[in-house]
Amino acid sequence: MRKLIVSLFCAGACLTVNAQAGSLKEIKLNEPDKTRGKSVMQALSERKSTREFSDKELSFKDLSDLLWAANGVNRPDGRRTAPSARNMQDITVYLCTKEGSYRYNAKEHLLEPVSEGDVRPIGTASVCLILVADDSKEYNMIDAGIVSQNISIFCAGVDLATVPRGQMDKNKISEALKLTAPQTPVLNHPVGYFK
Amino acid sequence: MRKLIVSLFCAGACLTVNAQAGSLKEIKLNEPDKTRGKSVMQALSERKSTREFSDKELSFKDLSDLLWAANGVNRPDGRRTAPSARNMQDITVYLCTKEGSYRYNAKEHLLEPVSEGDVRPIGTASVCLILVADDSKEYNMIDAGIVSQNISIFCAGVDLATVPRGQMDKNKISEALKLTAPQTPVLNHPVGYFK
Repeated sequence: MRKLIVSLFCAGACLTVNAQAGSLKEIKLNEPDKTRGKSVMQALSERKSTREFSDKELSFKDLSDLLWAANGVNRPDGRRTAPSARNMQDITVYLCTKEGSYRYNAKEHLLEPVSEGDVRPIGTASVCLILVADDSKEYNMIDAGIVSQNISIFCAGVDLATVPRGQMDKNKISEALKLTAPQTPVLNHPVGYFK
Repeated sequence: MRKLIVSLFCAGACLTVNAQAGSLKEIKLNEPDKTRGKSVMQALSERKSTREFSDKELSFKDLSDLLWAANGVNRPDGRRTAPSARNMQDITVYLCTKEGSYRYNAKEHLLEPVSEGDVRPIGTASVCLILVADDSKEYNMIDAGIVSQNISIFCAGVDLATVPRGQMDKNKISEALKLTAPQTPVLNHPVGYFK
């Protein structure tokens, strides 16, 4: 079995996960920096879709804050940064990197390994978030849009590039993420630094 | 014909529109304050759904910024604070007040009068935004969710109370907003100050 190297530097450094032969590890994320970023109106004024990315890897701080911003727990009762119809919390965020895919566990603010291999729909961005909906829920598409815009506004607020995309090989992604009905991948968000 | 009184004070004042006898007027909104609000992460940490509101009317500045944040034009080419699938811009924002309903014209950043009468789904909030989707578009529910979260994050960032709601009398709203198929009201956002 080959070696798993997980180098996680907390401040200003990069996330490097070289996972091989079935051994991605759980990744405990940094506590989110809840003071960070431009003002809300500044972020909205800079919000745009970007399809070109630097090849620099996302820092661990940026990754940690990104996942929390997307759909993290922001209250002691477990409620989220993203509202959902009847608080069903029907959107799950997955992270795809060059090395493998992880499920974001919002309650514990950590990444659970799911599978090895690169299934990022856009390989030029450091990471790609996949928004997976529960297809049995009436408002699941609205709830996915809500999480998507958390990602877009966070990125605009901290100078990250992203774009919400519907296009992807859903069968391939579903297999890699080990989804079972009624779970469906509905949007993907490549995220990286501006080129 | 009775008198139309539109008192619009720009700084710290209230929007008072006493429209009578079929004569709501077009309202040119303030230029958005693009530096305003808490940091993006602070807003995300304070984002919550609120169903109780002060009876204080929304200031004209807050109203102007709210509409721009929701789905305003943020670039010279007409693109918006909210992305939409293939840039179809398939979500239209309507404003319902005690006096009547208006369509938000994002290009001109103004409110076009639509009809008199109070059709706010929650009468305790100063205003209610209605998100109207083009029901012929594949990603319209996602696009509605995106606009909804712009509203929620803006509100969290400037200490306004709101909640995204699916429940409303869609026939009554459609009639008041003079919608024709495939236009469909999908979400409503009462907005006001915290109680």
